[in-house]
Amino acid sequence: MAETFEELVEKYGKVGRYKNLAEPFHCDVNHNLFMGHLGNHLLNAADFHSSDRGFGMRTLNTLNKTWVLSRLVIEMEEMPKRYDEFVVESWVESAMRFFTNRNFRVISQGDKTIGYGRSIWALIDTETRQPCNLLDIKEGEIVKWAEPDLECPIAKPGRVKMSKEAPLVGEFRAAYNDVDVNGHVNSIKYIEHVLDIFPISYYKDYMLYRFEIAYVAESYYGDTLKLYLEEIGENEYEVRISKVTPEGESECCRSSLRFKHY
Amino acid sequence: MAETFEELVEKYGKVGRYKNLAEPFHCDVNHNLFMGHLGNHLLNAADFHSSDRGFGMRTLNTLNKTWVLSRLVIEMEEMPKRYDEFVVESWVESAMRFFTNRNFRVISQGDKTIGYGRSIWALIDTETRQPCNLLDIKEGEIVKWAEPDLECPIAKPGRVKMSKEAPLVGEFRAAYNDVDVNGHVNSIKYIEHVLDIFPISYYKDYMLYRFEIAYVAESYYGDTLKLYLEEIGENEYEVRISKVTPEGESECCRSSLRFKHY
Repeated sequence: MAETFEELVEKYGKVGRYKNLAEPFHCDVNHNLFMGHLGNHLLNAADFHSSDRGFGMRTLNTLNKTWVLSRLVIEMEEMPKRYDEFVVESWVESAMRFFTNRNFRVISQGDKTIGYGRSIWALIDTETRQPCNLLDIKEGEIVKWAEPDLECPIAKPGRVKMSKEAPLVGEFRAAYNDVDVNGHVNSIKYIEHVLDIFPISYYKDYMLYRFEIAYVAESYYGDTLKLYLEEIGENEYEVRISKVTPEGESECCRSSLRFKHY
Repeated sequence: MAETFEELVEKYGKVGRYKNLAEPFHCDVNHNLFMGHLGNHLLNAADFHSSDRGFGMRTLNTLNKTWVLSRLVIEMEEMPKRYDEFVVESWVESAMRFFTNRNFRVISQGDKTIGYGRSIWALIDTETRQPCNLLDIKEGEIVKWAEPDLECPIAKPGRVKMSKEAPLVGEFRAAYNDVDVNGHVNSIKYIEHVLDIFPISYYKDYMLYRFEIAYVAESYYGDTLKLYLEEIGENEYEVRISKVTPEGESECCRSSLRFKHY
């Protein structure tokens, strides 16, 4: 029999804590964990947290529903270094009818907080791909998991405003390794393609301390994806990815990057 | 003080065993762990095994030496599925002056062996990039770690013979995410680029059960890499990756793939 909310809170608490390792081949030329791999650790934490508490992907899939990531922001004071163990905490900040806000804290050895994350998720019907009311699941139990008072001192996702004239800087075709179990291009792969716009020499001098992405529409195997880049301030960039289909070109995601000199 | 060989054997045994999880976003459209991610788990096992026993990358780096992967073969009866826990065992089969053979066994839940791996590594000087004698390290202690009698019932790496006329099927420029802490294109990234040659529809019907790669020369950030494909039998393919530099085109690696119908 399924456990009650009270039993689950007793067993797991409201905040999930997950140990991770900055694996040697997941680190960049500066020995820093790649931002894409850090994003993957955050998405895992979201998945493990919600699964343990009865509203994860596996449970929802049996109801023909799934979580869709709408926004992700990561802001770091420093990145985990090669072989570092670090903890990712995750919790629900709030839940409304169509969206839930989920936050993250990244903690390095010695219990030092090195960064935070924010994310926004929607629930969709896997057949119609239309949004569903979160509060219809388990009589709105997700609301009880909210921990609105836990600190997450980074700016909420902003509105990425790009001019239509931003120049094309890259293009790729979504291939086998880009596509995950859901059949669409994986959220993390967009992050990697965005980061690949910048030369490695730039990463040697500058730290990507804030990365933000808004997922607008799904793309699929074989789609041609185009990347447009705009410099909007000193070491501040915005990137738009759009897909080209026989029907024309349409936006898939928008990303915003803030770098600082080491 | 450094532990003696006898103390290390007592503490760790000759075979390393590492628990892994087929993470949700590391699985393909069939819910199978991507071969590239499986390869990464094997390389981690190699690194953890050698580090614990005093001949890992971190120890060798202090001597201006490092391990270079020369060959990797993975042969699987089945792949770990999404959320599966699995164990990777790793041990040294043998060690000679310039190469060591390291094997792997992949074990799923219920203690079922689902596959094996073989690898060949060379030791190089990080400054001259020239091969070094393994037996000069810790008075040849690596030889004592060998477990030649442990079963690894898959064929050794073969010689990949491709015709010069194999057609060009893909091209990419080595970007930020392709390059690891060593400053060269990461071994796993070549695997991913090779697998991306094949259409997703092929993976839905066919299982890649044997993957083999020979690393011939390093490539670096910004190199243009070209992929050539040859079908050498039914569901048997060979792929060559070469790099184009101002000096001309030269081979980086060769790979051999065997698929079977599900």
